[in-house]
Amino acid sequence: MLKSLTLLVCASNYLHRRSPTQLLTSLSSRHRPSLTLALTKTTNTWLTSPCWWCCFSRQKMSSSASASNGAAGGDQQGDPPPPQEHTEEEGGAGSKKGAKKADKKAAKEARKAEREQQQAAAHAASSVPDDIFVEGKFGLLPVIRSTVLDKRLWSAVKDIDKPNEGQCVWIRARLQTIRKKSNKMAFMVFRQQLWTIQGVLCESDEAPEIPKDMIKWAGSLTPESVVDVYGAVTVPQEPVKSTTQHSVELKVLQLFCVSKAAPILPFQLEDASRSEIEFEKDPELVHVNQDVRLDNRILDLRTRANQAIFRIESMVCQLFREYLYKEDFVEIHTPKMLGGASEGGAQCFRFQYFNQPACLAQSPQLFKQMVLSGDMNRVFEIGPVFRAENSFTYRHLCEFTGLDMEMTFNFHYYEVLDVLEKMFLYIFKGLNERCANEIAVVHEQFPAAPFQIPQPQEGDEGVPKVPRIEFQEGVRMLREAGTEGVPDDISEFDLSTTQEKALGKLVKDKYNTDFYMLVRYPLKVRPFYSMPDPNDETFSNSYDFFMRGEEIVSGAQRIHCPDLLVERARAWGMEVDTIKSYIDSFKLGAYPHAGCGVGLERVVMLFLGLNNVRKTSLFPRDPKRLAP
Amino acid sequence: MLKSLTLLVCASNYLHRRSPTQLLTSLSSRHRPSLTLALTKTTNTWLTSPCWWCCFSRQKMSSSASASNGAAGGDQQGDPPPPQEHTEEEGGAGSKKGAKKADKKAAKEARKAEREQQQAAAHAASSVPDDIFVEGKFGLLPVIRSTVLDKRLWSAVKDIDKPNEGQCVWIRARLQTIRKKSNKMAFMVFRQQLWTIQGVLCESDEAPEIPKDMIKWAGSLTPESVVDVYGAVTVPQEPVKSTTQHSVELKVLQLFCVSKAAPILPFQLEDASRSEIEFEKDPELVHVNQDVRLDNRILDLRTRANQAIFRIESMVCQLFREYLYKEDFVEIHTPKMLGGASEGGAQCFRFQYFNQPACLAQSPQLFKQMVLSGDMNRVFEIGPVFRAENSFTYRHLCEFTGLDMEMTFNFHYYEVLDVLEKMFLYIFKGLNERCANEIAVVHEQFPAAPFQIPQPQEGDEGVPKVPRIEFQEGVRMLREAGTEGVPDDISEFDLSTTQEKALGKLVKDKYNTDFYMLVRYPLKVRPFYSMPDPNDETFSNSYDFFMRGEEIVSGAQRIHCPDLLVERARAWGMEVDTIKSYIDSFKLGAYPHAGCGVGLERVVMLFLGLNNVRKTSLFPRDPKRLAP
Repeated sequence: MLKSLTLLVCASNYLHRRSPTQLLTSLSSRHRPSLTLALTKTTNTWLTSPCWWCCFSRQKMSSSASASNGAAGGDQQGDPPPPQEHTEEEGGAGSKKGAKKADKKAAKEARKAEREQQQAAAHAASSVPDDIFVEGKFGLLPVIRSTVLDKRLWSAVKDIDKPNEGQCVWIRARLQTIRKKSNKMAFMVFRQQLWTIQGVLCESDEAPEIPKDMIKWAGSLTPESVVDVYGAVTVPQEPVKSTTQHSVELKVLQLFCVSKAAPILPFQLEDASRSEIEFEKDPELVHVNQDVRLDNRILDLRTRANQAIFRIESMVCQLFREYLYKEDFVEIHTPKMLGGASEGGAQCFRFQYFNQPACLAQSPQLFKQMVLSGDMNRVFEIGPVFRAENSFTYRHLCEFTGLDMEMTFNFHYYEVLDVLEKMFLYIFKGLNERCANEIAVVHEQFPAAPFQIPQPQEGDEGVPKVPRIEFQEGVRMLREAGTEGVPDDISEFDLSTTQEKALGKLVKDKYNTDFYMLVRYPLKVRPFYSMPDPNDETFSNSYDFFMRGEEIVSGAQRIHCPDLLVERARAWGMEVDTIKSYIDSFKLGAYPHAGCGVGLERVVMLFLGLNNVRKTSLFPRDPKRLAP
Repeated sequence: MLKSLTLLVCASNYLHRRSPTQLLTSLSSRHRPSLTLALTKTTNTWLTSPCWWCCFSRQKMSSSASASNGAAGGDQQGDPPPPQEHTEEEGGAGSKKGAKKADKKAAKEARKAEREQQQAAAHAASSVPDDIFVEGKFGLLPVIRSTVLDKRLWSAVKDIDKPNEGQCVWIRARLQTIRKKSNKMAFMVFRQQLWTIQGVLCESDEAPEIPKDMIKWAGSLTPESVVDVYGAVTVPQEPVKSTTQHSVELKVLQLFCVSKAAPILPFQLEDASRSEIEFEKDPELVHVNQDVRLDNRILDLRTRANQAIFRIESMVCQLFREYLYKEDFVEIHTPKMLGGASEGGAQCFRFQYFNQPACLAQSPQLFKQMVLSGDMNRVFEIGPVFRAENSFTYRHLCEFTGLDMEMTFNFHYYEVLDVLEKMFLYIFKGLNERCANEIAVVHEQFPAAPFQIPQPQEGDEGVPKVPRIEFQEGVRMLREAGTEGVPDDISEFDLSTTQEKALGKLVKDKYNTDFYMLVRYPLKVRPFYSMPDPNDETFSNSYDFFMRGEEIVSGAQRIHCPDLLVERARAWGMEVDTIKSYIDSFKLGAYPHAGCGVGLERVVMLFLGLNNVRKTSLFPRDPKRLAP
């Protein structure tokens, strides 16, 4: 009875605060005698496999398996060292007496734990070989090389729920964690992208025969390995709080390793997935910094937040296109290798194109315009944009994804703003509807206020209007609020990032929106091809859009009259000859037109309220980062 | 009566072979006395405007309009000369007596025509200024600079049809052609992208008052100018064969020029739009060759065939994504600037990335794989691909658009082929359904057999199967057909373009399809990362897809086991250190996976049966072409 009770307390601790009585009720009669959990807290004894990836040696193809093992062992030296944070955490004690004592104790415990680990590893290694394969039960699968067609019915973790109770399912997933509680029981978490489910490996009604070797072998599996699991779906009495599939768990019946992860990872996924709130509560927690993440982006991408971020990013593109297709836009692909600088010469990556100098496109704008002159009167492009800007900020990248559009209009560039306004609202609403789960997952790790879009007002007929504020009015608002650095003569004035943020706040206070447009910028702060305001040439027919007070779109009515273009280029001190082909393109008859370019990564960053654009770029490029 | 008859014959000639009687019936009583068409073939007297684009000088902004006129006149020297074809056509007579006589006569006629043109131009210029503006009637509009909001209801040419008879509509369109038949009548064709409609400018029931100056001024308009037309929709007795809107024409009531095209175009759109069948019938016709087209791509893009081609290209992307979204794929954007060569070093554009060497991505493949290792288990990307291949062929470009996909599979790469097979059928069927008109338009100019897709066979349950032929079987078919150059030992053999085409023909004869897959290529002709066939390492788990006998897809199961990857890289004589990060990416646990890259331009070229990939690239890049 004592044994039963301690067992129950222990199991209860693990099973998320179930009361012993609850647990007792939930346990079948078969369980009770077979469970022999240790009373003490068990140590996770991941067995380091000297050559974990040489599973292919079990294939016919290589007769030099052992030689290759040796080589692989050598390769391991190249593995990334454990993150420094760990070391710092362990070695950070002070010089006080109490601390010394604590150090001593900790060192002793560490030595003990290490000894235990080594013993356990040695034992496990001697008794259950790493590459064991017991058909229909467990083991390391041969490398999958398309020898058999897949006849298996697979389940997705996200779909396994209460209605599946009693069914047996196959899943292929990452082994996120494994905790061997004893020789007879192990708990696992399996992960597929955003979704996780708990697995229990022990004898039970559903799994009457679990070989001891299976549990031993399972204990040797490294986290992040890819496994095939065959399990019975059961409903635990208390929801499993640590997984996304709260209501169910899998009683593991078969377990195979498809691909084993290295025993030492650059960082623990748990550390990389921790919420910023947890760090606030406990600053001592291991923190994986941005560069370590990006250096090991593959592992970093596996966090649930990152899985969500890049699904949201994909959806932004999808919504952008959906809306524009409905509005009769045509998708185009313009060249990225150009004979001359596309906008300004300074920020351009130059290279040799066979026997002539070339540069990478800093924007598809001139090509979009040419295509418009070629009668494709509404076009968009999603593609890379290259900027050789030597600046490290949280919001600049040297390569980003541009969402570009350009369209002809009839009389006023507001026709284009009307399209853009509806397009952005379509994107934001679409994200909220289709990516609600993903947004929530991102905010679990990186808390932020939801992105506020304008609500319909009286007279809007259900369709909200996005505030369209004139630059002069914006300046007036800033002056009124006492913002620093706003000159009296604004003819050459553009807002600084700080002023933009201040204005964003003022606009939010007044209009309750995180999204608005600022129009009619001073002519002198816009590119030469921006159409001057016909009523006051201090200003231009131009616009920027803002999200959470930061610019995401820049655009304008472009000059479509060649002579005016020449005049403006000269006013800018440009060599007209260098842009001759651009100017000539308007000599074949041109429609009035306007357009804009949107930085995809910035839109996603600001929609989610993230603090760095590197978080929304798969493999960011900045002046110092060109890999991976 | 004679006058009436000659008039009718002449008008009849113009109005597409209507019989005089038909025409007589169709003419209203108002018409008859007012028509005074000349008996001789009228010369089109386009008035060259000395400074056609200085319309902005009418704005307040510039006080130096005349100075700018002078400058613009100077600029005109830079206008492209008339295409050489014209000159050749005129000056190509031989030395025979008859030819001499003909030359003399032609020269005389040319001098006469020139004189007449000059006179007409002088007269028109003196009486109706080029920049006249008569409100509510006709004239040159001021440059549109967003002074008024658009309150006008516009119509699209493609939507104007019989049901609109009697309505008055506004269109903004290109003036494709204008033929002034007399001082009282002019015929025009207006074009919007793929669609054209005839306009008639003369007094009629619908247009009782047309000022003479309006017709004079209209005659001075240059083809390809952008115009605003207000006209009454009428139904001509005989369909207008030369326009897409056969059943209707516009009686022009108001006509304004929005943007005037240069009087001399690099080539005539009519010449660039001519069907290949017409050239076969009459090889003397002016032919605009590929380089002239590409040098003046803006004008070239305006042909109906090009409008159709790039709409089809846009649709291919749309269908590609639609299918993959349905299959739970996520869109990604991988970097194009890399620290090392992405596949082979030789064909890579190199440049300086701040203080380190870099190159442009030749394929997103390694990144797609890394993203898969990052748990995005089904991804696709549409983006530019850069190849520094110094080869001029009809099917190679130095920059093209890659449709890339990569996905994990469970046991066999055929799971990936299943997805790809359905995806391509979805694209082909989608094009046939959604772009039927565009396909027809392309084939009008470039005739080709329709693209044959596999039809469902017995047992296919309505879903056709794409032939999946083993490389060995393909070789056997070629041998049987007596194709040259097929060796006995095929372990290092790959098909030449000629052999691919021969095989395509054999497959079409046998399976009646222009689309099929060839699988299991010899290992030695595939990249090092291709998975060797587990049963016979002469071969690999790889595949190519073919359209009309030409390769459009190349792909394989990629090796996901790091040690096997190292072994294969060494077998290829590669420096393993240079691809260390790629190899390391599989050390964190990897799913079996496969994928492929598709060349968008090639798919469109082959689907349409075109003869050059430059026809399906907006601004093609080859070793000699980097502009526009």
